[in-house]
Amino acid sequence: MADPKQPIDFWFSIGSTYTYLSVMRLPDVARREGLEICWQPFDVRAIMVEQNNIPFRDKPVKAAYMWRDVERRAAGYGLPFAGIPPYPIKGLSRANRIALIARDEGWIVPYVQSAYRRWFQRLQEPATDESLLEDLAALGQDARRVIALADAPQVDARLQEQTERAKRLGVFGSPTWAVGDELFWGDDRLDDAIGWLRGTLRVPPRLGSR
Amino acid sequence: MADPKQPIDFWFSIGSTYTYLSVMRLPDVARREGLEICWQPFDVRAIMVEQNNIPFRDKPVKAAYMWRDVERRAAGYGLPFAGIPPYPIKGLSRANRIALIARDEGWIVPYVQSAYRRWFQRLQEPATDESLLEDLAALGQDARRVIALADAPQVDARLQEQTERAKRLGVFGSPTWAVGDELFWGDDRLDDAIGWLRGTLRVPPRLGSR
Repeated sequence: MADPKQPIDFWFSIGSTYTYLSVMRLPDVARREGLEICWQPFDVRAIMVEQNNIPFRDKPVKAAYMWRDVERRAAGYGLPFAGIPPYPIKGLSRANRIALIARDEGWIVPYVQSAYRRWFQRLQEPATDESLLEDLAALGQDARRVIALADAPQVDARLQEQTERAKRLGVFGSPTWAVGDELFWGDDRLDDAIGWLRGTLRVPPRLGSR
Repeated sequence: MADPKQPIDFWFSIGSTYTYLSVMRLPDVARREGLEICWQPFDVRAIMVEQNNIPFRDKPVKAAYMWRDVERRAAGYGLPFAGIPPYPIKGLSRANRIALIARDEGWIVPYVQSAYRRWFQRLQEPATDESLLEDLAALGQDARRVIALADAPQVDARLQEQTERAKRLGVFGSPTWAVGDELFWGDDRLDDAIGWLRGTLRVPPRLGSR
């Protein structure tokens, strides 16, 4: 059984569609449920390409369903859905490199939410120079400093390290909730992760497949 | 808004893994919630191959996660999970052709449940001659008669028609819940489908992507 005091690792990539739902609702859920959440940015695209896991690009029927499902689920959570945003985003790596810097400096949650508002509510790419100049200023950050830092090789190396960590854990998609080494994939599995943490969702040991 | 008296179409294929969860719990949910469910067997594999939608075969990390997730969700529903069953099953088409016959004759629910018990609880292929001789007899059916009927070209044509109907609706996976032409994919979307039927899950018309 999991230690109910341990944090839930929230493995995510800005650029993942369903992650919009998690990013926008997570602070409220964490407060209500008394959860400690560790925000863990990584590059989901690198893992998906490596694993030949291409859920939407060449699958128009499934992609159309995904947008409709995100729209309905957003409505269910009371989140705006302004229409289908640009997809895939070009600045996935940079958006997540900035998330690492923002985590170091203590402004990751408002930054990731601002990136998703840009993307899902204004329907614009979140990590362009133009978007960042406005969005980071609104967070009280010097966008030029942050962009220069994010585009330096050391931060790229850090994102790759995060991505390797995710891969070693068995993460293959965003969002993934990790309670120790138990993984729950998808915005819709947050409740299962919480149940696992608290011991209300259990698998009898004799049946465990691990 | 949907008519709350209309049925939910349960599009499914024996051979889909998560469909185990739906098949085993659905009669109880339908009774508790007062739902009318229309069981709609089709050949999900034909659609997935056509759409190049191969979620697990060449994706070991995702496949390992899927089994663990099914195991945990089964535990959450109080359903047995005896271990990883044979996958993919060889008799997918025949298993679903028999489901069509069983629907005509009024024994589809116990038949599909017996096929899933064979597969997930006894870890054996569900639509072999050997499995069917035992499972259909237990349902009071003459297995030889049913097998001969299921293997006739007319029933194969009917399964193809069902599959074409599913495809025209936009179904790409099993299980899919359809409320009119609104689709909900996955065992975990049954609650959303019920919410849609009752009008408690709504998307503001100006945001609708359809």
